[in-house]
Amino acid sequence: MTIGVDLGGTNIAVGLVDEAGNILRRAKAKTLPERGPKAVTDDIAALCRAVMADGGPVEVRSVGIGTPGSIDRERGMVVHAYNLGFDHLPLGPMLEAALPGIPVRVENDANAAALGEAFRGGARDYASSILVTLGTGIGGGIVMDGKLLTGHNGAAGEIGHHVIVFDGHPCTCGMRGCWEAYASATGLIRQTAEAMDAAPDSAMHAISAAAGKVSGRTAFEAARAGDAAGRAVVERYLDYLAAGLINLINILQPEAVCIGGGVAGEGRPFLEAVRGRVKRGVFRSEQGETEVVLAELGNDAGLIGAALVGRAGPY
Amino acid sequence: MTIGVDLGGTNIAVGLVDEAGNILRRAKAKTLPERGPKAVTDDIAALCRAVMADGGPVEVRSVGIGTPGSIDRERGMVVHAYNLGFDHLPLGPMLEAALPGIPVRVENDANAAALGEAFRGGARDYASSILVTLGTGIGGGIVMDGKLLTGHNGAAGEIGHHVIVFDGHPCTCGMRGCWEAYASATGLIRQTAEAMDAAPDSAMHAISAAAGKVSGRTAFEAARAGDAAGRAVVERYLDYLAAGLINLINILQPEAVCIGGGVAGEGRPFLEAVRGRVKRGVFRSEQGETEVVLAELGNDAGLIGAALVGRAGPY
Repeated sequence: MTIGVDLGGTNIAVGLVDEAGNILRRAKAKTLPERGPKAVTDDIAALCRAVMADGGPVEVRSVGIGTPGSIDRERGMVVHAYNLGFDHLPLGPMLEAALPGIPVRVENDANAAALGEAFRGGARDYASSILVTLGTGIGGGIVMDGKLLTGHNGAAGEIGHHVIVFDGHPCTCGMRGCWEAYASATGLIRQTAEAMDAAPDSAMHAISAAAGKVSGRTAFEAARAGDAAGRAVVERYLDYLAAGLINLINILQPEAVCIGGGVAGEGRPFLEAVRGRVKRGVFRSEQGETEVVLAELGNDAGLIGAALVGRAGPY
Repeated sequence: MTIGVDLGGTNIAVGLVDEAGNILRRAKAKTLPERGPKAVTDDIAALCRAVMADGGPVEVRSVGIGTPGSIDRERGMVVHAYNLGFDHLPLGPMLEAALPGIPVRVENDANAAALGEAFRGGARDYASSILVTLGTGIGGGIVMDGKLLTGHNGAAGEIGHHVIVFDGHPCTCGMRGCWEAYASATGLIRQTAEAMDAAPDSAMHAISAAAGKVSGRTAFEAARAGDAAGRAVVERYLDYLAAGLINLINILQPEAVCIGGGVAGEGRPFLEAVRGRVKRGVFRSEQGETEVVLAELGNDAGLIGAALVGRAGPY
């Protein structure tokens, strides 16, 4: 058994995970990062003790934590995590002190999710895969031959922050034209709102009014209802999404690209539309093409992946 | 000793290479691919025999060939190489039949050059590096932990064919807006010609007239002479070049990016200008930054790298 911890800005989710990647027990608490790192770390330790004890004692070999921000794996340190207020926090050593005898490892949350999907989720049949999570931003991670690709400095896999529109829309990272600024849910919502301003007769107005807001679903729903402006937004969005996928494939040629996050909830028609675009753009080889698949673990990807991080030797 | 073969559309260059990567003997011939693959292969074998015999017999452990086009490493096959007219040519087995007892391995020429620079050239001090060759197109290869990153299907490392300008200039590959269409020497020459059309008073006209053509040097020379239009072309070109480098670094975080090809002949000021732009755009880590360095082996990179391909076990 190992424990996986998915540490987020809002919630801490902890799970006891078996060798096959099944979550056997769960515990959860609010993060409330404004209390400071010591209180958050104490709560993580308490949640770990809870899943070890509740339902009968079990032997736990390791704890893995997926955390936002930049990390130093060797030191188990969260170098910077702005939404948690962590700055050079030795999270691993602090938890090892609180959980004597159990090694604790720290990983970036997007990388942990990529590991989860690679071993247990949508990419489980592929030795190399890239997870692309379409949410507020674009998260993701690269798994090659079963190992996370972390780069020489631990910071690789920032797939959302590669430029697809030179001199384009400002990105949260300070650059312009990043894939994230166009193909995240946030990017889709911005494109939807812009199209609504330009098309006062579009069905997108009624759809968003009924939902109470413009969301990543507005344009997709309008397109399904036959709205031309909605369809144009969707088509353009899919083009942006495919551009970044094609870039990653032409550079890395993984066996699979796995798409998750809210937008991927559009399901099969969305997947087929993405596949068609990708197929037209990538460098193909007679020795195999990259499969585009949907993520399957949802919010559990990070927790399950974190449990793997704890378990694995060097990965 | 091993033999490296750099097979190009114009020339075949063969070298006898020692364990340290020094080229001890050389032989060369015109490729003349219109003669057909059998004649080309016979010439490669004859050149290999020449470097094994001329100057006294030596024991050769392996032959590695860097070839344009797509390859199948396991079969030693050139799948497609349009400029050579090769289609599913079993180049490795054909040469092994001609050179009894010597194993022959086949690699893509851009990947071979990346190996050469990684082990013996500008990136020799770094365990992971990406070679970016700025020529007619953008060639390159990715070396991670001393091994070529080839992807699950052997086709990875097409770094020139990733989109940096969505819906941009048509690329030779069929896509639009590829890095190669903007940051290759060909892209620079196009941008130079466009700027000259818009600036009839620019010094670029006299410079290109004196040289007999618009080249990748025209704008750089004009910029050095204080020409505003020339400087604008150079600045913009450097921005395009940096955009792709930043993309590769944010995705892969190699220890080094190594820039070669004609444009890199602009030397230190060019290198410093690229470094400044890259530094501003990449995700930085306290655990180290990617170094941007110049390639050092010139036309020998492919030959030396090919000799390594032959030597290495799985790489």
